Amino acid sequence: MTEFSREELNQFIGLHRESKNFINLNPIQRGGILTPEARKALVEFGDGYSIYDLSPGLEIEKIPLVKRFISDILPRFLGADAVRITLGAREGIFNVMHSITKPGDTILVDGNRHYTTITAAERAGLRVIEVPDSGYPEYRIDVENYEALLKEHKPKLLILTYPDGNYGNLPDAKKLGEISKEYQVPYLINGAYAVGRMPISMKEIGADFIIGSGHKSMASSGPIGVLGMDKKWEKPLLRRSDRYPEKSVEFLGCELRGSAIATLMGSFPAVVERVKNWSREVENSRYFIDKIEEIDGIKQLGVRPTGHDLNFLETRVFYEISKRHKRRGFFLYRELKKRGITGIKPGMTKNFKLSTYQLKKEELKIVINAFEEISRMD
Amino acid sequence: MTEFSREELNQFIGLHRESKNFINLNPIQRGGILTPEARKALVEFGDGYSIYDLSPGLEIEKIPLVKRFISDILPRFLGADAVRITLGAREGIFNVMHSITKPGDTILVDGNRHYTTITAAERAGLRVIEVPDSGYPEYRIDVENYEALLKEHKPKLLILTYPDGNYGNLPDAKKLGEISKEYQVPYLINGAYAVGRMPISMKEIGADFIIGSGHKSMASSGPIGVLGMDKKWEKPLLRRSDRYPEKSVEFLGCELRGSAIATLMGSFPAVVERVKNWSREVENSRYFIDKIEEIDGIKQLGVRPTGHDLNFLETRVFYEISKRHKRRGFFLYRELKKRGITGIKPGMTKNFKLSTYQLKKEELKIVINAFEEISRMD
Repeated sequence: MTEFSREELNQFIGLHRESKNFINLNPIQRGGILTPEARKALVEFGDGYSIYDLSPGLEIEKIPLVKRFISDILPRFLGADAVRITLGAREGIFNVMHSITKPGDTILVDGNRHYTTITAAERAGLRVIEVPDSGYPEYRIDVENYEALLKEHKPKLLILTYPDGNYGNLPDAKKLGEISKEYQVPYLINGAYAVGRMPISMKEIGADFIIGSGHKSMASSGPIGVLGMDKKWEKPLLRRSDRYPEKSVEFLGCELRGSAIATLMGSFPAVVERVKNWSREVENSRYFIDKIEEIDGIKQLGVRPTGHDLNFLETRVFYEISKRHKRRGFFLYRELKKRGITGIKPGMTKNFKLSTYQLKKEELKIVINAFEEISRMD
Repeated sequence: MTEFSREELNQFIGLHRESKNFINLNPIQRGGILTPEARKALVEFGDGYSIYDLSPGLEIEKIPLVKRFISDILPRFLGADAVRITLGAREGIFNVMHSITKPGDTILVDGNRHYTTITAAERAGLRVIEVPDSGYPEYRIDVENYEALLKEHKPKLLILTYPDGNYGNLPDAKKLGEISKEYQVPYLINGAYAVGRMPISMKEIGADFIIGSGHKSMASSGPIGVLGMDKKWEKPLLRRSDRYPEKSVEFLGCELRGSAIATLMGSFPAVVERVKNWSREVENSRYFIDKIEEIDGIKQLGVRPTGHDLNFLETRVFYEISKRHKRRGFFLYRELKKRGITGIKPGMTKNFKLSTYQLKKEELKIVINAFEEISRMD
């Protein structure tokens, strides 16, 4: 039998988040902070398969509360006809690719897509054509540029990342909906940074699929995501097993397991509320950008004014300091940490992304003051 | 914007596990109960992507603690050369199928396999041949029966479920290792009910792949699993993206996200300890079976004496009562519930599976007494 030393095992005891009470600016983390209700649900349903206890003897997807959530509440929330729980945004994108394309097919994606859109396409054996962004400083995706590539490459699927995860740009998704209908090509909107943060409706956009991420933007423990679809895609996506006619092939029976679903449901009422307050989030984000752009050598890149809490900053002022600082690029991370702020990648000073999502005005002010103070360092 | 009524939202408030402090006999739940350390880790790392806080700025799989866990600790624990974290056992099985077979290929699986082995094969476009079990009462898988089918069907993969999830039978996995080597066919062992419960080593068995489930048997919140492999399979399984040479294609970059990994690491020291005590678990299980078989009309099916905590019981005595009881088949569930016991599927009386894993002797006695009392009902 394998032997492990006491030291080898002890390293896993007392796992600790030093920065738990810091102001965290990491965009990947801000939308996944649990609500108090979700935290209670997590503790209640933390044990492996304890979600079964909600309705003993039923398959998870048949538990009445879960069933109502998936077949009524979530479709209305996403503006979709049918919804499935996935293991995350990337897995949902792969589910769609694997169900409605064949290896060798071409797909058209925006140049600002997440890297996992590419790995999912590679896993599905697809050829990927990218619609380029406009480059520095806006990195704008003009959806009209899909048209020429549509004609040239006859893609089997269009993907738009809305917003993208670098600049928080929000392309004209609705216009792409019209284009997709004109060319009759299915259209997937990757809303990993939209669903659960801002109002978004698949139907209003005119998309065929919508992807969301529980751990990124729906105040959930992960891994968990949502996939909404138009009813015309239920047949390929929800195709049943020959041997087990109740079971889905693409989702291997059911992707829904474990405690993540308890947090997705537990946070849902608060998520509905926060989505309603999206305009305040955008106001806060613009306020923050306005204030830090008063610092000489800091500039928001991407489309302006920002329409999202996730923003990309060019910060020449910090880069200049890093050149003369003994800690080099790491000084910024350290200086922020001293002030109870985290989430900027250690070593980065020239440019980086951050999110102000759900930060209170006082917290924004602490961050603004920190940036100002640090920018004045010798 | 979608409107939800107060009632629609309130149903997700206060999600509650009525049977949290019950003795739970559900095999799918017993091995996933969090250890106290894992519960602390869950609360600490409950927020969506908070695992990043362990080492800010690093990809999850490069966090030193996570990296040591995956590239050193888990391989030794599983007797494998390389390990990847998966989203669960079924996803791990699909990862293997999708990476080393082609649609149209044939695979050979044991007749006691979980239904998700079949859905994974259907998703991968594979033809499945099943090695039949011996039928009532043992449902034994004789691995020598793989040989004739190997010759006839030239499969590209052998799968053995060890133990299966109905009878807890433990076929001669090592013997199948020899057969797989002789015929040079890769061999996957599905240890969803073994890894984290009992000692098991991929190398000792002579398998090419081993699958484990965090939420089923490794005291973890889900969804999470492990996939161990022989080094000769690293090339197809861990193939890298053309566009992102650091990223894996089959695992879409990284399947490792969210709080589940915190619980898998947090419970690991206790899991190592409990695996060492496996013989006591088998003793307890045999003690339990001996005692309840003293009740007329209760009999353990599957191979005897049992070698696992998961067992299948034929319970004619309860079935007879159900025929005359006003609640019919549901009486048993209700009677057990009155006594603080849960985990037997409501409505079942003729036969059912249960697990005694990690139950204390006093708890076993409570269950035995309950079965005795209920068997004497008019």
